[in-house]
Amino acid sequence: MRDFSTDHRWLSVNTATVRAQWPLDRIVDECARRGIRAISPWRDQVAAVGLDKIAKAVREHGLELSGYCRGGMFPAADAAGLQVALDDNRRAVDEAKTLNAACLVLVVGALPGALAGRAVHKDLTRSRAQVHDGIAATLEYARSVGMPLAIEPLHPMYAADRACVNTLEQALDLCDALDPDRSGALGVAVDVYHVWWDPKLQAQIERAGRERLLAFHVCDWLLPTRDLLNDRGMMGDGVIDIPRIRGWVEAAGFAGYSEVEIFSAEDWWTRDGGEVLDTCVARHRSAV
Amino acid sequence: MRDFSTDHRWLSVNTATVRAQWPLDRIVDECARRGIRAISPWRDQVAAVGLDKIAKAVREHGLELSGYCRGGMFPAADAAGLQVALDDNRRAVDEAKTLNAACLVLVVGALPGALAGRAVHKDLTRSRAQVHDGIAATLEYARSVGMPLAIEPLHPMYAADRACVNTLEQALDLCDALDPDRSGALGVAVDVYHVWWDPKLQAQIERAGRERLLAFHVCDWLLPTRDLLNDRGMMGDGVIDIPRIRGWVEAAGFAGYSEVEIFSAEDWWTRDGGEVLDTCVARHRSAV
Repeated sequence: MRDFSTDHRWLSVNTATVRAQWPLDRIVDECARRGIRAISPWRDQVAAVGLDKIAKAVREHGLELSGYCRGGMFPAADAAGLQVALDDNRRAVDEAKTLNAACLVLVVGALPGALAGRAVHKDLTRSRAQVHDGIAATLEYARSVGMPLAIEPLHPMYAADRACVNTLEQALDLCDALDPDRSGALGVAVDVYHVWWDPKLQAQIERAGRERLLAFHVCDWLLPTRDLLNDRGMMGDGVIDIPRIRGWVEAAGFAGYSEVEIFSAEDWWTRDGGEVLDTCVARHRSAV
Repeated sequence: MRDFSTDHRWLSVNTATVRAQWPLDRIVDECARRGIRAISPWRDQVAAVGLDKIAKAVREHGLELSGYCRGGMFPAADAAGLQVALDDNRRAVDEAKTLNAACLVLVVGALPGALAGRAVHKDLTRSRAQVHDGIAATLEYARSVGMPLAIEPLHPMYAADRACVNTLEQALDLCDALDPDRSGALGVAVDVYHVWWDPKLQAQIERAGRERLLAFHVCDWLLPTRDLLNDRGMMGDGVIDIPRIRGWVEAAGFAGYSEVEIFSAEDWWTRDGGEVLDTCVARHRSAV
């Protein structure tokens, strides 16, 4: 297992972590001047500044992208909605390619309409079939341009509205179905926040192996957790045994960045952005 | 699958559903006069009125107990704490027996101290081992007095503080380890709120079968869910396809009560208790 205690060369910052403080061009600058070598930006943050401008800034700073957030959201109420989703995923692949991202992260979606508060049906099985088909279609295009897709299983508390892929086992079953040769074109993003509770986690990380482990995300689970979406903790402030999980991931062959992704409406998003990044650096060394 | 649309003979009310409105003796009376044939009370509600008084009221009204809430909470920081938990579970078995409950529900516990906001360690594997051993010890006594134990897998969002058994598969693995003969002494409580998201749910319900399916709990998952603990919905107000899951449970041989258990600090606990019970009866017919 790599020693993170003396430097932060394997730290990546998911730019949602300081999204409330700064626009993306400023985030890129602030990361670069702290010696942070990688980021993972969100599409809306890129769009707000401009894709070409961000691509240029990333290039000039020599930053890598540990991932690009995000594709997915496949399930739809009708065929027209499915086509809109597929078209949008194709654009996400193109943007990821322009930014030279290591992978496009897929948050696959769940019950159509649920994110807006009104699900049009309750059939998770149907949504899961649409996710399978949506990934298959997107994978065909992503393969052709050489952009790996990383399915991110989300915590089961998001099964209704954000992702109906809720365990690593389920994500890997999709990978096996759609990329049986383990070509590297399809894999998973393992975010400790979503999977730390899973009694099968270690076994499924082993199953994933190097070819499927495309991204590793960290934050922490707070006690109490006051909000289902925006109350994630800084590494070390919660109950997740992050080093243990990183050990499993690295034993399975993962050697990439450890990406900090914290949504925190009442705490970290209210602090000075510099303080947040400095804390990410410190906790990367002490608690990851 | 049984037709629930014309009567409520298979409705049970978990008494937490109106715990904010009434003491347990009043709840017993209110259920009985609505023709509700079964309840599932909590230990603190029983203790507040008195075990003998409740046992007498239940007998006089001819009420059944679909379960008794709850045993469990096995993990502890040290040997003394484990012994306290085992002693308390023995008392819970005795109370369940006095009340002639169908089973004692086990919410198994998770990281010691976490429920009070301060986990003494982060090792879920250790907690899971203590849960295994705690159930084994309690089962020995429960068998001797003829009280079935029902392990309730809780939603993964409670893995830190309430239960480190978080899927039906995991609960059934425990059952297989501790009661390989499927004697009926150990099984599971399937609460749709905790398991509805699970892609393996149908298969695991089939695996459980009649001998292991000791209780079936219903409520609904609201969009949005505003609180991790006390924002459960009335059946029909959320996104869970309850009839589908009941169909699976009954196909596997379950023929018992459908127990309504709603924790709802901002909604149902603020309403008139009679309105809540009347709504439970109506929704049992229309949405379960």
